[in-house]
Amino acid sequence: MPKVTIAQNILAVNENIAQDIHQSLTARGIRALNVMSSPGAGKTTLLERTIERLRGQLTIGVIEGDVETSADAERIEAAGAETVQINTRGACHLEAHMIRDALTQIELADIDLLVIENIGNLVCPAAWELGEDARIVVVSTTEGDDKPAKYPQMFAISQVMVVNKLDLLPYVDYDLHKVKRQALAINPNLRIFEVSCRTGEGLDAWCDWLIAFTRGA
Amino acid sequence: MPKVTIAQNILAVNENIAQDIHQSLTARGIRALNVMSSPGAGKTTLLERTIERLRGQLTIGVIEGDVETSADAERIEAAGAETVQINTRGACHLEAHMIRDALTQIELADIDLLVIENIGNLVCPAAWELGEDARIVVVSTTEGDDKPAKYPQMFAISQVMVVNKLDLLPYVDYDLHKVKRQALAINPNLRIFEVSCRTGEGLDAWCDWLIAFTRGA
Repeated sequence: MPKVTIAQNILAVNENIAQDIHQSLTARGIRALNVMSSPGAGKTTLLERTIERLRGQLTIGVIEGDVETSADAERIEAAGAETVQINTRGACHLEAHMIRDALTQIELADIDLLVIENIGNLVCPAAWELGEDARIVVVSTTEGDDKPAKYPQMFAISQVMVVNKLDLLPYVDYDLHKVKRQALAINPNLRIFEVSCRTGEGLDAWCDWLIAFTRGA
Repeated sequence: MPKVTIAQNILAVNENIAQDIHQSLTARGIRALNVMSSPGAGKTTLLERTIERLRGQLTIGVIEGDVETSADAERIEAAGAETVQINTRGACHLEAHMIRDALTQIELADIDLLVIENIGNLVCPAAWELGEDARIVVVSTTEGDDKPAKYPQMFAISQVMVVNKLDLLPYVDYDLHKVKRQALAINPNLRIFEVSCRTGEGLDAWCDWLIAFTRGA
């Protein structure tokens, strides 16, 4: 079956490039995150709040993946991080070769942590390694409490789940315990943070973890 | 470039199957919708409320696309529509051959309207015709007001945009006018409905349109 063979080859090539990226970043003492979610779960806002809070403690470089527009990259730059935009022009996920090219545009000597914000998509990005040390899946309280069960691969390959929009819990039917139970059934090692980027609730614990993670703890 | 040629062939094969499906449904007097959105925008809830309201007026058959689980199909069956589940086991969109197979499981003589609920994904499903008469994109007030600009293809190929979760507008930063302006800039013919599946606001206008659409108006 040529279709399957081709797909395997493409993923194998991607994995090789991802390994090269990971080695190169590790050699420079840089840690990398791949942040994924549905469209609108709040990846960019989480990143804005994180950059603002960690100013003076960590220097964060950002690669912003978007199908179109550079709106998110502009928001991240305004928050104070060096940012490179990747526009995939219709493609539904980032691939390692895009990250390799984007890294030539970042002054790597200056950064401690590279954050890659993937395309808003709970399916496809899960299959593509980008050279990251950890994968973060962001879910929000407004998108229904069945997401881990319905999109299990994303939760299986992530190390961290951030539940965002805690401030909207009173207005929606969202069983936070069910979401955590579903996610941990898929991936018992998943680390979970509950935050509201709007009120700031929970961001201290998330930022503390990020500092420890970046310092290799 | 073999990769591009293969992709074109796959899409061409899909389009041929989609045309066959469309002809076959049209010959039976059945109209078909392809409903797409981000994960958690409310496709299934919109469909539940629609089936309940149109009971006795339209007989609706549903094909439920999910990566995993049959939770949505169970909800739709409970709402009173004949339902067939497609599990894509990791794939990020429905394809026409899946619809062709699913249609063998539905008693077509009984239905007026076929609703296909696609995988929750604002990117990939936009490229795959399923034999539908109209494409519906559902967005929600909690997922940010930049979605049409960031995922333009989905809005370009849709005939209808449903903005759901109007009841949450007081609690979020969401500029409804901006969303409509962005969407209409991409697709000036887009028909827009504003609803809350929770309160029922706007569902009458949506259901009226659906009845007229099904009757070929």
